[in-house]
Amino acid sequence: MTPRNAKVEGPVWTRKDLLGIEGLAREEIELILDTAPQFVAVSQRESRIKKVPLLQGRLVVNWFHEPSTRTRTSFELAAKRLSADTLSMAAGSSTSESKGETLHDTLANIEAMHTDIIVIRHKCAGAPHMLAGRHKSHIINAGDGRHEHPTQALLDAFTMREHIRRLRQDPAATLDGVNVTLVGDIEHSRVARSNIHCLRALGAKVTLCGPRTLIPMDVARLGVRITHDLRDALEGADVVYALRIQLERQGAGLFPSLREYIRLFRIDSASLAHAPADALVMHPGPINRDVELSTEVADGARSVILEQVSNGVAIRMAVMHLLANSGR
Amino acid sequence: MTPRNAKVEGPVWTRKDLLGIEGLAREEIELILDTAPQFVAVSQRESRIKKVPLLQGRLVVNWFHEPSTRTRTSFELAAKRLSADTLSMAAGSSTSESKGETLHDTLANIEAMHTDIIVIRHKCAGAPHMLAGRHKSHIINAGDGRHEHPTQALLDAFTMREHIRRLRQDPAATLDGVNVTLVGDIEHSRVARSNIHCLRALGAKVTLCGPRTLIPMDVARLGVRITHDLRDALEGADVVYALRIQLERQGAGLFPSLREYIRLFRIDSASLAHAPADALVMHPGPINRDVELSTEVADGARSVILEQVSNGVAIRMAVMHLLANSGR
Amino acid sequence: MTPRNAKVEGPVWTRKDLLGIEGLAREEIELILDTAPQFVAVSQRESRIKKVPLLQGRLVVNWFHEPSTRTRTSFELAAKRLSADTLSMAAGSSTSESKGETLHDTLANIEAMHTDIIVIRHKCAGAPHMLAGRHKSHIINAGDGRHEHPTQALLDAFTMREHIRRLRQDPAATLDGVNVTLVGDIEHSRVARSNIHCLRALGAKVTLCGPRTLIPMDVARLGVRITHDLRDALEGADVVYALRIQLERQGAGLFPSLREYIRLFRIDSASLAHAPADALVMHPGPINRDVELSTEVADGARSVILEQVSNGVAIRMAVMHLLANSGR
Repeated sequence: MTPRNAKVEGPVWTRKDLLGIEGLAREEIELILDTAPQFVAVSQRESRIKKVPLLQGRLVVNWFHEPSTRTRTSFELAAKRLSADTLSMAAGSSTSESKGETLHDTLANIEAMHTDIIVIRHKCAGAPHMLAGRHKSHIINAGDGRHEHPTQALLDAFTMREHIRRLRQDPAATLDGVNVTLVGDIEHSRVARSNIHCLRALGAKVTLCGPRTLIPMDVARLGVRITHDLRDALEGADVVYALRIQLERQGAGLFPSLREYIRLFRIDSASLAHAPADALVMHPGPINRDVELSTEVADGARSVILEQVSNGVAIRMAVMHLLANSGR
Repeated sequence: MTPRNAKVEGPVWTRKDLLGIEGLAREEIELILDTAPQFVAVSQRESRIKKVPLLQGRLVVNWFHEPSTRTRTSFELAAKRLSADTLSMAAGSSTSESKGETLHDTLANIEAMHTDIIVIRHKCAGAPHMLAGRHKSHIINAGDGRHEHPTQALLDAFTMREHIRRLRQDPAATLDGVNVTLVGDIEHSRVARSNIHCLRALGAKVTLCGPRTLIPMDVARLGVRITHDLRDALEGADVVYALRIQLERQGAGLFPSLREYIRLFRIDSASLAHAPADALVMHPGPINRDVELSTEVADGARSVILEQVSNGVAIRMAVMHLLANSGR
Repeated sequence: MTPRNAKVEGPVWTRKDLLGIEGLAREEIELILDTAPQFVAVSQRESRIKKVPLLQGRLVVNWFHEPSTRTRTSFELAAKRLSADTLSMAAGSSTSESKGETLHDTLANIEAMHTDIIVIRHKCAGAPHMLAGRHKSHIINAGDGRHEHPTQALLDAFTMREHIRRLRQDPAATLDGVNVTLVGDIEHSRVARSNIHCLRALGAKVTLCGPRTLIPMDVARLGVRITHDLRDALEGADVVYALRIQLERQGAGLFPSLREYIRLFRIDSASLAHAPADALVMHPGPINRDVELSTEVADGARSVILEQVSNGVAIRMAVMHLLANSGR
């Protein structure tokens, strides 16, 4: 069964927006993952076909209210490889928002010019949802506060699945029963939140590991295992996923000293010795080298960090294609 | 008579630039308005044809020296829908101007790379005119100080005419004798100035209404009626056009208190009761909600504010097409 | 022998990157110069062919860490006229670098999305070289500190050669024996450094002229003549190349007073009287009018400053084409 067949025979995409992973059915997540491989091929440097005309003449607007290089670039490239036109709306001093306009009014105005997809990143959790309910454009959440970052979780799951399939030499292998350990600041991480929802929906077993102050109390109800012992967390892990430490949080009292964090939770050759020899190492970037992840591990043979980035373009192509070309 | 026929039989465009409405002949303004409908069709979200190749391979440069989301975006989309290449030149710290280069030298340099159309917004009245006289590219004024904002007036007139035609069920109706009331800060508004010139040229009757300090003494010579009584201004109005109040002017002594402004000049359900039941409500955006315009009116059935935005792309396509593809 | 034949019969391009002029063979420089004329034709405002498909579907990333209008724009246009997709990565507050990521990690991430050419400007000399050694994309140095600005030197040499050929009515004339005088702040100029290497490789005779504090001691070993007397420098010059004075250096003690600089080193009608009547005047821009160059000379008949800008796009098209479509 090829991914293309999967699309024809399997479920079809029926949602207007991609706002988060929470609430998506397993079939929906798998539909996105199964749509991506054709776009991985288009995105290769060696590929002769550099673009596909699936969004020809459509308009994709990147509307980022927080700094971003890789995510903004990834969406922009995804749109361009689908032959869409793209538009970047800077948020901040050079925009109408500096004149006191609301998000709704700014979007209503942009939409009046006939946009198709709005990719939004915003510091307020729920901002994309609030907009999606009132506007016709397809909204893609590119990160909302500490809430969700759904395309990151999808590209992560896709990367894990590809490697599991290769490792097991089984092209239909799923993430059922795969052990994934997330290490670090779970509390403030929208990447962690989306990954937990995504991995649980796909049948993976999720372990969270980090300082007590950085793991929210109520996260256990999501069906994850929690431990504060890195050695315990890494035993039996198929995937070790290091989260980014936001260094500016150190002063806030929630955070142990950096030296202590490194001693207890850094993924490096020493700590990684407790994981199986073929465990993958992942990170959402940008890395604080030698803080949450040692340089030798980040650049080592087990690391698939740059593959995550490559797959990100393909996953975002898949999402945009499904949103814009579904029945809706 | 279709708009296309109008172009063939009627006047042809002979100007190199669009610097302002003042001085344009009625025939020139109508040529632009008659060129726009074909581009309204292209700009629909539902349209199968998303682009026309009228500016294929041409280069349109957006050169904005003041903050703008909607105008800059509207010009950029207009250019892209005409298949032009676009280039944004940020003004400010990351540019040659921060190295002390003059506007003329910067433009001469950009033009040496073979630009076709330069869209410029500048805080100094007359900056586009100064440049137009010395450079080969077609210059479009996207707002110069308090002076003019010609494409805004054109899209406003187009929106009014479309509605008058629909209302009267007469596809050839003009703005002759139509009553348009502009309310607010006339003094500091380039939108008001361009609209007065445009509406007068098209035969409309223009009433200005606002605090005495915000209506310039000499504006009466433009053939407009002035009143400081909103009720008087709205009686018989076919179009009620609320201008944006620039809140930062409050401290300057010219401006009444905000409470007083709202009490005397706000367009809301209460004040609008004095206008005819089918009067249109317009605003150039961005709106200060519940200052110059109440939210219920802004979002109400009489408001055509988002249609103004949609028509803006088509009008700008018409202007660019006429400038670049005329005999010159 | 046409330039096209030169490409077929002559040397082929074998380098992955263009990092500087130093170390390039004369044949390599001439290959670039001989590749440019076809792109000069495409870049004309009157040309019917506005684009060539040589980089269709390829991705060119502009990554500028210092302010630039003309160079960034020139590279962007060059890429677009080759039908490449372009992406601008702003450096600074809105990027991952503000989160502490290294240049290497940022580039590795961008490259994981399959870029073809990276155009980089950076305040640190050697930054492009450091990146080129570790990344697959073709790197073009668009200016690194005081070190090199190779495409500027190539467009300068191309402009000189075109004029010498026209003047001598010899379409195969070279720069052998042509006298080029560079005037001004040699010490801090990457433009001067690249020009010296380029002109020497092409057989020109180079004279440097400026205040003692602004000419580095060791530059004589590059085979140039040094003088501090402008009259002496201009006698017999075929080309007079004024460098930009960075006015902010005045306070640093290295610099004479502005009045003194102007008196001794400004290129104006009076000083230019010492040069041959057909000497060309050049400047890399942006000009400090009436400081290093008088307005009448900058805008006069001998000035080819805007031709330098026009040729810049063609030279950059040539460089991108050679890098991306060579055997490598």
